[in-house]
Amino acid sequence: VPFRVGEPALDLFPVDIWARLYARHARRGARDFLGYGHANGYPPLRRAVAEYVSAARGVRADPGQVILVRGAQQAVDLIARTVFRPGDRVWYEDPGYLAAAAILRLAGTSLVPVPVDAQGLRVDVGENSAADAKGVHVAPSHQFPMGSALSLERRLALLAWAGRARAWVIEDDYDSEFRYPGHPLPALQGLDAAGRVIYVGTFSKTVFPALRLGYLIAPPDLVDRLTHAAAQVDHLAPTLEQAVLTDFIEEGHFTRHVRRMRKAYAERQQALIAAVDREMAGLLRIEPADAGMHVIGWLPPSSDDAAVSSRALELGVEVPALSRYRLRAPLAPGLLLGFAALRPTAMTTALRKLRKAIEGGPAQ
Amino acid sequence: VPFRVGEPALDLFPVDIWARLYARHARRGARDFLGYGHANGYPPLRRAVAEYVSAARGVRADPGQVILVRGAQQAVDLIARTVFRPGDRVWYEDPGYLAAAAILRLAGTSLVPVPVDAQGLRVDVGENSAADAKGVHVAPSHQFPMGSALSLERRLALLAWAGRARAWVIEDDYDSEFRYPGHPLPALQGLDAAGRVIYVGTFSKTVFPALRLGYLIAPPDLVDRLTHAAAQVDHLAPTLEQAVLTDFIEEGHFTRHVRRMRKAYAERQQALIAAVDREMAGLLRIEPADAGMHVIGWLPPSSDDAAVSSRALELGVEVPALSRYRLRAPLAPGLLLGFAALRPTAMTTALRKLRKAIEGGPAQ
Repeated sequence: VPFRVGEPALDLFPVDIWARLYARHARRGARDFLGYGHANGYPPLRRAVAEYVSAARGVRADPGQVILVRGAQQAVDLIARTVFRPGDRVWYEDPGYLAAAAILRLAGTSLVPVPVDAQGLRVDVGENSAADAKGVHVAPSHQFPMGSALSLERRLALLAWAGRARAWVIEDDYDSEFRYPGHPLPALQGLDAAGRVIYVGTFSKTVFPALRLGYLIAPPDLVDRLTHAAAQVDHLAPTLEQAVLTDFIEEGHFTRHVRRMRKAYAERQQALIAAVDREMAGLLRIEPADAGMHVIGWLPPSSDDAAVSSRALELGVEVPALSRYRLRAPLAPGLLLGFAALRPTAMTTALRKLRKAIEGGPAQ
Repeated sequence: VPFRVGEPALDLFPVDIWARLYARHARRGARDFLGYGHANGYPPLRRAVAEYVSAARGVRADPGQVILVRGAQQAVDLIARTVFRPGDRVWYEDPGYLAAAAILRLAGTSLVPVPVDAQGLRVDVGENSAADAKGVHVAPSHQFPMGSALSLERRLALLAWAGRARAWVIEDDYDSEFRYPGHPLPALQGLDAAGRVIYVGTFSKTVFPALRLGYLIAPPDLVDRLTHAAAQVDHLAPTLEQAVLTDFIEEGHFTRHVRRMRKAYAERQQALIAAVDREMAGLLRIEPADAGMHVIGWLPPSSDDAAVSSRALELGVEVPALSRYRLRAPLAPGLLLGFAALRPTAMTTALRKLRKAIEGGPAQ
């Protein structure tokens, strides 16, 4: 599916290496990975994750703080059910990540939409509208869907508020590995002296989605409560896949694969921008993204992005409307275009259909 | 760990066959199992599950009603969050399965303890105390921990009540495959004409726990809502393991393995009963279990089972007290002894420690 948002480049994944590591472990001791075990996951992988997030993301993490989960969504779900109570107010980036909104609502919390701008979350607006909120869901490295990074000033303001309000900051760092100019921004968690940040990461984008492995780094005070919750809802036994992933990281394959993807994604983004400039001038204007796996394509000012998106879907092109991610923030009309999994051959046909969706009236 | 409740006989699992099937799939098309996919899981496995529960458990199931999950706990979690609202009253077997109680409470429901006897859940008591409850959690094939099977009369009464009250019946069929005299009892779901039963099964006991695969069979009216919830909390992409399990079932390995375990479990239970009769007469009286993976060992009438259990734990023997599973039902003192994973060599030492825990005063 061309342009699907969040779909990584599976064509680049080294399946041969993965299969070799798997076979090695299966030969050595498959029986060790059959039973129940510690709900926080395979201890060597928890160590490898702690080392990785410390080195690559500036997160302060002891292996004991690492809880392995099925992905960022399950992490937010566990956190929400553990630290919030029904009725608690929680700040939510507007526009923001819909799956997190759904999960926070499922836990009974009440979302307080807080707008974002070029410096990320408007902490001042959050404080004015709900200074006594119990938490915030935020993607400081790469706001979804707008793409901004939270500025240092805002980071400090957010942490200061969280300390005063004793609120929990859920830092969703879902695609921080893919930053094109310069170096990845360090995580907010590294600045947090008060233990208010719960850091969430995932291997769904950096390894492969079906692996269903992510992690959260809990502040020391929360480790026991989150471990207890993890054991209740989905006892994540140490599995062979976790052992394979440990080797994949420790033998350097992970870093090499991420580096290779980052290079390919930068190229794919450029190819997309060039093709749109060439073929769709006046209909769609793409703003280059510094990070992540999608760009925003701005439509002419009077367009109805939801209508364009649904016409495109009928033509087989999945480009969600920007307005879909809004709670109440005013937004110019736009579309989200994923470029990570985009192949040049598929792009031309997909852009032709997209042009039709933008130009056309209602689809038949 | 000798006597651990719920631990299957991992020594009997054919790891060689599993590894061979895995390697075959990894060679053929590992890349097909990397991405996101339908949240209900791998379609061929959903078909295999529908066939299995129809043939072996008398469940009426179309593959479209099968939702693959991580195990029985996650199934109950998904169901509770989908069909109940905070404050809803739900019948709960007393004594019963603690993990289900924890999950139902986490979803905000209020548990109504309903006693069990030799015919299973006392439906009449449930109706007298909360006829307007919104649901019930029940293990009709093999009540946990008491071991009774729900009689036909009670089954019909339970379904009649659920139909009148428009209540949801969560049928937890977690270890129904292990019935020693005669044939497994068909599932309650097969008797349900009104679509009120949500059937829950797991491969944690029949294949291996770390696989983290179970299933629920949703009534047609609930398929969409449960699918939506499944996609939100843990998108269970089709994985290589699901393809391997499909072959494991379709090539007959699953049935052979279950048959082999059933025979071994019957022998292990007999060996345990013989050893206890021989070595612990007057201290512990084991009631043979018709089904499942544990027996109840009754202590002398005036014993404090919680104290015995905690002394045993200090000596390295895990035998939970029966009183632990009680909400308010009066119960004679007893211990739960798992026998599925029990090896004769470990048994003698473990029984010696258990005797010490029963005879001894407070542990040091």
